[in-house]
Amino acid sequence: MNPELPLRRVAIIGVGLVGGSFALALRKAHPDVFLAGSDADAKALAFAKANHVIDQALEHASEAAADADLVVIATPLVALPAVFGAIATTLSDAALVIDVASTKESVVAAARAHLGAALSRFVPCHPIAGSEQSGVAAARADLFDERPVVITPLDETAPPALRLVRALWMSLGAVCHEMAPGAHDRLYAYLSHAPHLLAFGWMALAARTPRLAESFELSGSGFRDFTRIAASSAALWADIVIDNRAAIAELLEQHVEGVTALREALLAGDRAHLLAVFGEASRLRRSLP
Amino acid sequence: MNPELPLRRVAIIGVGLVGGSFALALRKAHPDVFLAGSDADAKALAFAKANHVIDQALEHASEAAADADLVVIATPLVALPAVFGAIATTLSDAALVIDVASTKESVVAAARAHLGAALSRFVPCHPIAGSEQSGVAAARADLFDERPVVITPLDETAPPALRLVRALWMSLGAVCHEMAPGAHDRLYAYLSHAPHLLAFGWMALAARTPRLAESFELSGSGFRDFTRIAASSAALWADIVIDNRAAIAELLEQHVEGVTALREALLAGDRAHLLAVFGEASRLRRSLP
Repeated sequence: MNPELPLRRVAIIGVGLVGGSFALALRKAHPDVFLAGSDADAKALAFAKANHVIDQALEHASEAAADADLVVIATPLVALPAVFGAIATTLSDAALVIDVASTKESVVAAARAHLGAALSRFVPCHPIAGSEQSGVAAARADLFDERPVVITPLDETAPPALRLVRALWMSLGAVCHEMAPGAHDRLYAYLSHAPHLLAFGWMALAARTPRLAESFELSGSGFRDFTRIAASSAALWADIVIDNRAAIAELLEQHVEGVTALREALLAGDRAHLLAVFGEASRLRRSLP
Repeated sequence: MNPELPLRRVAIIGVGLVGGSFALALRKAHPDVFLAGSDADAKALAFAKANHVIDQALEHASEAAADADLVVIATPLVALPAVFGAIATTLSDAALVIDVASTKESVVAAARAHLGAALSRFVPCHPIAGSEQSGVAAARADLFDERPVVITPLDETAPPALRLVRALWMSLGAVCHEMAPGAHDRLYAYLSHAPHLLAFGWMALAARTPRLAESFELSGSGFRDFTRIAASSAALWADIVIDNRAAIAELLEQHVEGVTALREALLAGDRAHLLAVFGEASRLRRSLP
């Protein structure tokens, strides 16, 4: 075991795609670690135990967190305040706490409200490694391999806690980046949250137009890629977009303005306007590494 | 050679991604065929000849079409009327003509205006096999393998011509579907044209916001898939969306209404509305074969 990472016992709160993958990746990189898990879904928890994703299944987050060196909160976003409150009662004095939620400002606010003395050992994290899949059955040990993890430290975050969490992600193959929680939320409104809403919206349009939905077998790879994220969990994403609503709403307003202008150019046959917009978009997209 | 497909000499007008791939696939399935090609881009034409995509490079479409059993028009959409006019002067009495353009109503109208007596041997086709790439260097012999090809026959299309063209696509591994030109254009406005415009629009938004464009390395697979088609050729797509403007504009109007409603639900914290839209979208997308 890495002496910088003295992980004896780790609690995984929420054994879904990300929590389960974290457990698998952690066991692969640190074979001696003992993994305790909890999940509000008893079936998912039993599946995780039966498939050796975790070593011990516990009903309550507070039990799993007790005596852990590291608590990984990987529940749906809306459960985080309650989980912070529950684990605060049993956390040991040296335990590190991380989350893996898709938004960061509200998570930081909930941590401030509920974690008490453990706040300095809480490091907010967002691994950019999800997919349209969810659930522990889709978990993979290599989910974080060469993927970015955005870490949004608080002013109160203790430097050793931050250092240990960075080392932890690196040991799982991830590449760490740091930014402020607000900057994170504005960036991912553009890179992830609003695109999910737009993809859901585009599919919903077909759901109300039978002749379209019946012809999906005639779609190409462009349509399949454009709409892939619309297969994501509706409930998880309703909560994520509500959580980051201000940043997303601002982007949607700009999007509606841009699409309205493109529509007017289209109807006017204004090829120059279309070419200017498509051209700057195409150049930028081709530059994406 | 398949006796149903007596192809001795085939003309490929426009040796880009689709024309070049058609040539490669045809040669693989029918090794004895002689392939003449023409292209407005002399460099692309020379590349195609040098790389044995075609056997003979000719400057004018009318020369390539002369004495051909089959003429495949794979130029950009806006060039089709001129190509129809050019080949009509040299086409042999039995030659079949197909196109591979992304829209069909305007192509059918141009064929009616320019093809003359050859109209009954013209079969409009749309292979659903492009990608964000373009150019002959990206051509592949397996581009059409197991891909749909939508054929939109005219009332004037001779049944033997239609039968031969279907057999031809099947010999290249494609799966044929038939519909009317107008139904095709409305369907692909939804499945392809409007998504391209929306993806271009989403990338253009970042092009005007430096802090977003600088952080693309932090994007996940969802963003990359959602925006992949924005790497497509701006010029080709400006012409395609203008060509099919009426159907696309109608969909964009519905899209703007839907996004505006989602934005209002977001700001109101109306989780039920979001969940209903996201839920029907997610169910439909998961059902996509």
